[in-house]
Amino acid sequence: MEALLRLSATLLLVLTALLVGLDSQTRLIFFVQKKASFTVLNALEGLVYATSIAAAYNFLQLCRYTFPYWFEGNSKKSYRYLAWLCYILDQVTVYVVFATTSAALEQSLLAITGAKSVQWMKLCNKFTRFCFQIGGAICCAYIASIILILVASISAFNLFRLYSPKKFLLVKGS
Amino acid sequence: MEALLRLSATLLLVLTALLVGLDSQTRLIFFVQKKASFTVLNALEGLVYATSIAAAYNFLQLCRYTFPYWFEGNSKKSYRYLAWLCYILDQVTVYVVFATTSAALEQSLLAITGAKSVQWMKLCNKFTRFCFQIGGAICCAYIASIILILVASISAFNLFRLYSPKKFLLVKGS
Repeated sequence: MEALLRLSATLLLVLTALLVGLDSQTRLIFFVQKKASFTVLNALEGLVYATSIAAAYNFLQLCRYTFPYWFEGNSKKSYRYLAWLCYILDQVTVYVVFATTSAALEQSLLAITGAKSVQWMKLCNKFTRFCFQIGGAICCAYIASIILILVASISAFNLFRLYSPKKFLLVKGS
Repeated sequence: MEALLRLSATLLLVLTALLVGLDSQTRLIFFVQKKASFTVLNALEGLVYATSIAAAYNFLQLCRYTFPYWFEGNSKKSYRYLAWLCYILDQVTVYVVFATTSAALEQSLLAITGAKSVQWMKLCNKFTRFCFQIGGAICCAYIASIILILVASISAFNLFRLYSPKKFLLVKGS
C-alpha cells in the first residue's frame, strides 16, 4: 500500500518536473523575439528543483521496499531509528513540495491576472500554450502533494505507535 | 508544553497578520500618487487571511486547555475521536500557513528582483519601508510555521500512540 502510494507520487513528481522544465514558447512581440520558459518566474524554477529532489528521495524509499534485506535492522532499536529518519525526511519532503507548488500557483495567478497597480502586465494572453502546460503541471504537483501527505501520515503512524499511550516517549514493551 | 507552543504560535500569527495588513506606503512617482498595500500582491492577501484563520483556530484550541471540562469525553472512544479531529485540523492549519508563507516569500522576492524578461519592474527600490515590514512579517510567519509543525507532530504522537504496534489500526488494550 505504502509502496504503491510512493510509486504514484514519484511518477507524478517526475511528470511535473518534466512538464515545467521542458515548457517553453517563443513569440514575436513588437518585432522582438520573446521566449517564455520556467526560468522567467523564480517559483517555477523552485518547483522544478523541489519536485526533482522529492522524486529522487521517493525513488530511494521505493528501493527500500524492493531490497528490504539491505536496510533491515538487526534489532528493535535500529528499526526505531529508521522509523524516525523516515518520518523526518517524509515531513520535510511533503512541506517543501506543498510550499513550492503553492508558490508556483500564486505566481501563475499573478501571470494570468497581472498586477495593474504596479504595472506588472498579464503574460498568459501572450503565452497561452505555455500557461496551459504550467497549469497541468501544477495540478499534477497538487495530486502528488496529497499522496505525499498520506505517505507522511503513514510514516508518522508507523513511528508513533511504537510508543506507550500512557507515558510520554516511553517505548512500548520496555 | 503544547499549550505554550500554541500560545506563542497564536501571538506570532496575529503579529504577522497585523504587520502585513496594516502595512501601506504612499509615494509620488511621475507626479502620480502610488499606494502600496497588501492588496497589490495576491499572495500577501492570502497570507493575511490564512494567518488570521490559523490564529483563531489556535485560540480555540487554547480555550480547550483553559476549560478542559467542556471538552472532556466520558469514554476512551470519544477521546480518540477528539484526537483524530485535532490531528486533521492541525495538519490542515500547518500546511495552509506554511504554503501561504512560502508563496508570499516567492512573490516578495519577485518584488525585490523584478522579472526583466517579462518587464515586471522592481518594487522595493520605490517602497523600501513597505518591503522591510513585509520581510519582518514573513520571518514571523516562518517562526510560527515551525512552531505549528511541532504542535502538529505532538498531536500526531498523541493520536497514533493509542494504536497497536503489531496490527494495523488496532486500538491498544482492546
